[in-house]
Amino acid sequence: MESFVIKTPSSSANIGPGFDVIGLALSVYLELHVTIDRSKTSSDHPLNCRVTYEGEGEDGDDISLDPRDNLITRAALYVLRCHDQRAFPLETHVHIKNPIPLGRGLGSSGAAVVAGVMLGKEVGGLHHLDDDRLFDYCLMVERHPDNVGAALYGGFVGTYLKPLTPEDTARIEIPLSEVLPAPAGGQDTGVKPPEPPFGIGHHIKFPWAKEIKAVAIIPDFVVATHKARAVLPEKYSRADVTFNLQRIALLPVALGQSPPDPELIHLAMQDRIHQPYRQNLIPGLTQIVESMSPKTQPGFLGVCLSGAGPTILALATENFEEIANKIIEKLQQHNEKKDLKCEWRLLEPAAGTQVIR
Amino acid sequence: MESFVIKTPSSSANIGPGFDVIGLALSVYLELHVTIDRSKTSSDHPLNCRVTYEGEGEDGDDISLDPRDNLITRAALYVLRCHDQRAFPLETHVHIKNPIPLGRGLGSSGAAVVAGVMLGKEVGGLHHLDDDRLFDYCLMVERHPDNVGAALYGGFVGTYLKPLTPEDTARIEIPLSEVLPAPAGGQDTGVKPPEPPFGIGHHIKFPWAKEIKAVAIIPDFVVATHKARAVLPEKYSRADVTFNLQRIALLPVALGQSPPDPELIHLAMQDRIHQPYRQNLIPGLTQIVESMSPKTQPGFLGVCLSGAGPTILALATENFEEIANKIIEKLQQHNEKKDLKCEWRLLEPAAGTQVIR
Repeated sequence: MESFVIKTPSSSANIGPGFDVIGLALSVYLELHVTIDRSKTSSDHPLNCRVTYEGEGEDGDDISLDPRDNLITRAALYVLRCHDQRAFPLETHVHIKNPIPLGRGLGSSGAAVVAGVMLGKEVGGLHHLDDDRLFDYCLMVERHPDNVGAALYGGFVGTYLKPLTPEDTARIEIPLSEVLPAPAGGQDTGVKPPEPPFGIGHHIKFPWAKEIKAVAIIPDFVVATHKARAVLPEKYSRADVTFNLQRIALLPVALGQSPPDPELIHLAMQDRIHQPYRQNLIPGLTQIVESMSPKTQPGFLGVCLSGAGPTILALATENFEEIANKIIEKLQQHNEKKDLKCEWRLLEPAAGTQVIR
Repeated sequence: MESFVIKTPSSSANIGPGFDVIGLALSVYLELHVTIDRSKTSSDHPLNCRVTYEGEGEDGDDISLDPRDNLITRAALYVLRCHDQRAFPLETHVHIKNPIPLGRGLGSSGAAVVAGVMLGKEVGGLHHLDDDRLFDYCLMVERHPDNVGAALYGGFVGTYLKPLTPEDTARIEIPLSEVLPAPAGGQDTGVKPPEPPFGIGHHIKFPWAKEIKAVAIIPDFVVATHKARAVLPEKYSRADVTFNLQRIALLPVALGQSPPDPELIHLAMQDRIHQPYRQNLIPGLTQIVESMSPKTQPGFLGVCLSGAGPTILALATENFEEIANKIIEKLQQHNEKKDLKCEWRLLEPAAGTQVIR
């Protein structure tokens, strides 16, 4: 019996002006408890893999326990099949413990992709795949680098996609169905999936001032990322572009300075590229961003939408509960449901994905 | 007799993706050699100020020696008149030594505005005006913060404009003719000009790795900033916005890391917001940006347009002359004038504006 644990952090993308750029790994972790029983000679489970689950959404229909359907095992299988392994080793059990809320802007699917790709490496014995190569695999499954970059490397990261040759672009734009194994019921055609080009994405680690904590306020509703993208305009004015460029240039340096400069951080977290357009999906967002200031709220540094929302992320140095309560109050005030439930958590930057044996 | 020198650096704006954001002060300095002869009781010069000039463009028509027309003395007079001083003290002589090429994208007018505002402070005895307040005055005259921010504060800076109240916005959008004294021949109406709102602009200093030098290649033609702005589109696609956001987030951190990572810097200096549109004004620019790489040119880190051009700025750690010659060759190859003259200079980050007594 071989066993190990893969531990992958949740994450917050954007942090205001850093749309599709900035990711911050946060201290709530997806864990895969994996056991491989090599004494077995046959399996009752598709692909030799049994999937069990506990945690967020365990009572709902969102999590498939069929390894041909589950995002984590599909990502693992993509890595395996690129290396001529058609299935998991006999017999694999993946027990998923997931405390990351689903569809709330805390990187649950980014964590699933990263954990899945790491799972493929580990069960396949593919030790030559380093983190940068795993990042390429992740980006074949999830084409936005911010959450997967944070979940894989940890900490506060900037990510970017390298300009690719037209041929490479064609390869990363193939439909996901050709990358991931066919869903349940589909045929395994035996065709090797396309390997990722090398060096699709890059990342850089930014410093993070030890005084700064993240307060995540998680409202009890889901915003689908594709819907949150659909409300964005196709074109932006030069004034709005300059507005964001000015802020994103400052943000990584401002958040690395110790002690933090609250006014600088507050201004550097402003955004005109995505948050204004998502106001209708997250009622109260604009009012929270516009009304809270370090001048009137001691300890408060700035506030933004976490990823595509609905989670609101405030950065602060103290008075965390008071800040969370003020944000919850605004969310309830502007939501149709005046008794909207909102959970809040005090989080810190987290290490990247680890394999613990 | 009182005498002092004001020393203001040249600067390069944008550095690739940081359009209207990033400024780098460079080690070529505008100097004002100022003397005030308080024994005089009357003056033969308008506004009690004699202006003399040596340096770039001294034989041309671009530099007015009339203090009502000269940009430096007009900026000084704006500061003075906001403090109820109608003219320079009797009798002021400002000798301008300017080695910064005019209209080439090296911040000559930004340096003039900063030196002028500092001149107003010094001759007016306005010691309560600190650098941040002087920045407000500069931004009333020159509304793009990157060059003036670099020239005032020195080093490698990110600048941004604070969102203003509608009233403040109206004040900073008044025509320059109401800010600056009337040009030669105009009447001094005795009306106090509008004072700047407080805190129009902000800046942050970024670290700069000591290994990195700037190679400025200065072609012998002028690009007017307003023409270089006129070629820019009104709207940008989301893909182009994301492209620049990804790079500008990385650039300040990448340029602060010692030793520098050439591949990271090279990618972080790419731009889709202004350089592609300015290709026709600076023939060869696109070919230079696309053909040079740290992989094929040792010591080379990246290349960009300096401000609105035509100066090309390469960042490098060694082989400066070779890099300059390759860029000059491309500029000549693509220009109509195959014998286009190009000067080049090896520069370093410079300190901000100083008053030397």
